[in-house]
Amino acid sequence: EYFAGIDAGSTYVKVAVLTEEGELAGFQHRPTGIDAAGTSRRLLETIMNDLGGSTETIRSIMATGYSRRIIDVAHDTITEVRAHAAGALLTAPPQANIRTVIDIGGQDSKVIVLGEDGDTQNFVMNDKCAAGTGRFLESLARVLELKVSDLGPLSLQSIAPATINSTCVVFAESEVISLVARKKPARDIVAGIHEALAKRIGAMARKARFEPGVLLTGGGGLNPGIVQALEDELMIDIHLPLHPQLNGAIGAARIAGTQA
Amino acid sequence: EYFAGIDAGSTYVKVAVLTEEGELAGFQHRPTGIDAAGTSRRLLETIMNDLGGSTETIRSIMATGYSRRIIDVAHDTITEVRAHAAGALLTAPPQANIRTVIDIGGQDSKVIVLGEDGDTQNFVMNDKCAAGTGRFLESLARVLELKVSDLGPLSLQSIAPATINSTCVVFAESEVISLVARKKPARDIVAGIHEALAKRIGAMARKARFEPGVLLTGGGGLNPGIVQALEDELMIDIHLPLHPQLNGAIGAARIAGTQA
Ligand code: SF4
Repeated sequence: EYFAGIDAGSTYVKVAVLTEEGELAGFQHRPTGIDAAGTSRRLLETIMNDLGGSTETIRSIMATGYSRRIIDVAHDTITEVRAHAAGALLTAPPQANIRTVIDIGGQDSKVIVLGEDGDTQNFVMNDKCAAGTGRFLESLARVLELKVSDLGPLSLQSIAPATINSTCVVFAESEVISLVARKKPARDIVAGIHEALAKRIGAMARKARFEPGVLLTGGGGLNPGIVQALEDELMIDIHLPLHPQLNGAIGAARIAGTQA
Repeated sequence: EYFAGIDAGSTYVKVAVLTEEGELAGFQHRPTGIDAAGTSRRLLETIMNDLGGSTETIRSIMATGYSRRIIDVAHDTITEVRAHAAGALLTAPPQANIRTVIDIGGQDSKVIVLGEDGDTQNFVMNDKCAAGTGRFLESLARVLELKVSDLGPLSLQSIAPATINSTCVVFAESEVISLVARKKPARDIVAGIHEALAKRIGAMARKARFEPGVLLTGGGGLNPGIVQALEDELMIDIHLPLHPQLNGAIGAARIAGTQA
């Protein structure tokens, strides 16, 4: 028997299918595009084809994320906070006692602090300011003519990160342009960019009164430069799930399974 | 006898020369460039040449603005708040009882509330977030492939302003791109942009507990679309000085004159 979770975010749709036992049977993700419902349906079909089944045979399908209410293939919806909290319990490395989920997405970021029993204790969300989200990296990668996926590996080579004083994306762009003009190596500029983003996320985490045992999810978890900068900023180790971008979808599938 | 004020801002240097009686004898402004001190000196020389004098014959030179401390031609410096407050008393239309100065500059914006006797009562400043500054207009003009100076006249032709939901420059850029794709007329998009900026400035003004009798200075005062949007947002008439960009420089020159 299978359970599915669909995390329909503003930039990406992520779909995860779990077995009854809560094991990841398959997953897919793709840019949301203009039709989040259609994208979700197609991704789910692809997974179920691979598993030799069909969407109809899924016991329960749960949607979460920004566009969750328009996902017609889903049987029910839950909030992102609940999905991420449930996902963290399932996806975190076994030895890690996760108390905080930091999610850095393409257009928003959130900090969820969990109580001892896994319920949500505190929650801070940012979707009003592009600084502190993936858009910060996207904008600055464009200025540097780099791919976002190259930023992490490049920044790890830096031994003298540049200082970016502005947290604002727009003002940081100007700073980066002038650092390039002053012939600062790209690796140092990128490392400085990651520090600036980590500072912003760190402020959110402190506002949420984060507890150690931090799991980093969302696209940010795929960037080793962000992971390192955030570890330095918060002065703790950061845990990563196997598939950082899938945390919400896995959590939604898990809740579909436990509710069924 | 002449008195000079130099407002060395992050984008423009503005220089004003006043007579003993507080009348504007000459003025110049130019992009700050990399040498704010040199730019200031050259602008002052140009003005004094036109007046048939020389920089050495100026009785007192006062610098204000972001780079005021490096303006070597100046005899003294004052804060922008004091300069703008003094400027408002001199540059406002005679019948207007100015109690609030709203300054929208290229990279920052401020709201200064004056007490009955012209001293500073409240002050709110924004130089951390590009939204609410001239950079907002600059960035969105670039997306629309328009000149900043065309925005005001164009928006006044709009009868159905578009709604821009994001105050963030980066997110607003995405909204504008999708409005263009949906064939919204440029005049309506620009009117929506002015409304979004006015909303942000309005929030600052309320935070500063503004008093009616509002003078709009800085580059924002040159844009009739901003003036109208801000009048709608604050639901009061906005007064304009003859040279909105010169308010700080004129105020600095005035203080040079009264202190001499
Ligand atoms: S600080 Fe910059 S990135 Fe953040 S809301 Fe303001 S303009 Fe947007």
